[in-house]
Amino acid sequence: MAEHLSQSELDYPFKLLEYFNGFRISKAIFSACELGVFDLLLQSQKPLSAAEVAEQLGTSQDGIERLLDLMVAIEIVDVEVVQGNALYSSTDVANLYLAKSSPKSLHDLIIYSSQTIYPLWNNLVDAVREGKNQNEKTFGLPSEEIFSAIYRSEEEMLKFMGLMNSTWVIDGHDIVTAFDLSSFKSVIDLGGCSGALARELAKEYPSSSVTVLDLPSVVQTAQRHFAQQDDTICFQAGDFFEEEIPPADLYILARIIHDWKEEKNLKLLRKIHAACHPGGGVLIAEALLFETRKGPTMVQIFSLNMLVQTEGKEHPPSYYTHLLTDAGFSDVQVCRTGKSYDAILALK
Amino acid sequence: MAEHLSQSELDYPFKLLEYFNGFRISKAIFSACELGVFDLLLQSQKPLSAAEVAEQLGTSQDGIERLLDLMVAIEIVDVEVVQGNALYSSTDVANLYLAKSSPKSLHDLIIYSSQTIYPLWNNLVDAVREGKNQNEKTFGLPSEEIFSAIYRSEEEMLKFMGLMNSTWVIDGHDIVTAFDLSSFKSVIDLGGCSGALARELAKEYPSSSVTVLDLPSVVQTAQRHFAQQDDTICFQAGDFFEEEIPPADLYILARIIHDWKEEKNLKLLRKIHAACHPGGGVLIAEALLFETRKGPTMVQIFSLNMLVQTEGKEHPPSYYTHLLTDAGFSDVQVCRTGKSYDAILALK
Repeated sequence: MAEHLSQSELDYPFKLLEYFNGFRISKAIFSACELGVFDLLLQSQKPLSAAEVAEQLGTSQDGIERLLDLMVAIEIVDVEVVQGNALYSSTDVANLYLAKSSPKSLHDLIIYSSQTIYPLWNNLVDAVREGKNQNEKTFGLPSEEIFSAIYRSEEEMLKFMGLMNSTWVIDGHDIVTAFDLSSFKSVIDLGGCSGALARELAKEYPSSSVTVLDLPSVVQTAQRHFAQQDDTICFQAGDFFEEEIPPADLYILARIIHDWKEEKNLKLLRKIHAACHPGGGVLIAEALLFETRKGPTMVQIFSLNMLVQTEGKEHPPSYYTHLLTDAGFSDVQVCRTGKSYDAILALK
Repeated sequence: MAEHLSQSELDYPFKLLEYFNGFRISKAIFSACELGVFDLLLQSQKPLSAAEVAEQLGTSQDGIERLLDLMVAIEIVDVEVVQGNALYSSTDVANLYLAKSSPKSLHDLIIYSSQTIYPLWNNLVDAVREGKNQNEKTFGLPSEEIFSAIYRSEEEMLKFMGLMNSTWVIDGHDIVTAFDLSSFKSVIDLGGCSGALARELAKEYPSSSVTVLDLPSVVQTAQRHFAQQDDTICFQAGDFFEEEIPPADLYILARIIHDWKEEKNLKLLRKIHAACHPGGGVLIAEALLFETRKGPTMVQIFSLNMLVQTEGKEHPPSYYTHLLTDAGFSDVQVCRTGKSYDAILALK
């Protein structure tokens, strides 16, 4: 998102047209992923023709050929033309991020973006008009109970948890190394979902005990679908908004605060402060806006997404500092990672 | 679309994430346009607060503020913060292309992209699987009769014609000046829609007589909604696939060939060749693929769009040369404009 509009747009709107076509590039990559293109190309021992890809994936040859050619144009797929026949093969980037089997796969993030976020954003005009999420209009789900909508079926819960998991697989390491957390021996990741961020933390600080506390149904799904052999973390079922929070040295709130309104956030942080061991702290992971209103673009996008899907929004660091101080925490430190998510640490 | 994937993606997928977020930038600009943000900012004598924009446009303040801030991040809107209050104002680019009243407005292209193309692309997976357009699944319209779907109501016809009109307002001049057309005294634009390209031609070659031939309902709508004072072009109602084509020196086929299969295109070009005055010709305006399969990205996108919405596709120059030669034309010349649409001229 580093490119910006130049004066030459006034001669011809190249960049604007690129923005207008953005949805078609997104959806083309998403669709190739949903169809299994990148898995097939990774597994294949040799480059494949469009006819071979079509046969293996059960698609039309014409359709898959156009999709493959667009993937070639944006350099996600390679092509060589041998005696007039186009033969397609995978790229390092596709193998690393788009194939389902890769440890850094963004497959689940893509599925969620394609099947849930894309249709939600079709109602962005109404979200802006009404100032509220579009779960009802898009999916016929109640707009007040955000997580009832997000977790409306086991399939949807799994998709959402996959999204969260993908995020921390690529961003988790930066979050847990933004500050030296080695002095915190007991850590609870509140709303830690599939456990991906907690595992990054346990890997980086092997002498700390790390627990994910989340809703019973989430914990059950996490253990069924995201458990690892010799797992380094524990799961505990509970509702940290409604029930007591267990004592610990460090609490993690990763993409929790941005879902809710200020009053609810303040109440939660006060409760955490009360439960926290003296000398302990809280680590918040969120995408941080600049204090000016000029970006980062990705975070402004996330903030609009919060409008479309939740009751929260993204904030600049000053919001979190103010909130944490109000809740009784001190020594607030902010670390911008330069990636998608940033980290804030505050001490009791 | 000049940026490409670099090896540093393997460290962190910045460009991939930008692609994944493309749909949200598209839809945010589209929504701001639909809500009238750019018209309001253009007309306002002074910078406006989010509260003022919300009041004038009948939106929530919170929603419009997030949308405006994203427009600021991508430099389509300006902001200055005065005593803690953010005041938003327009930019030259927004005034030129996004405000409805501008002669170069892309407003209608945006409305069509947002309300018709965006939902169609939500079914791209099925389009690729089935190898056919998704008018039925998306809008409940018959997939065989493309223009019955596109022209399903006067409102839809007007939107589609607005799309075509926007295109030629920014790309028409390059098309009509790609070759010296001054020797062609009578010109018929077959399927010339709103007449925007025909008007560009009449302006460039004032001694030529230029006629738009299109379906009766299209001609009626063109005259009702797109007519200009002292219009320099004529309209004639007819169906050039079903009825006789009137004689002329030059025929224009702008974004017609890409809608249909080869057999239908060949039949049409043979009919044009028969009607054409000796020494006359045909000018085709289409987005041209490279002969390799590696781009341009925008044209690969268009070709997938043809899959989702029509029965045609985009082609490289060799396809058109072959088709025109088969139909009896000669001296085929190809001109890439470097913009969205290219030009091909062939003589009888």
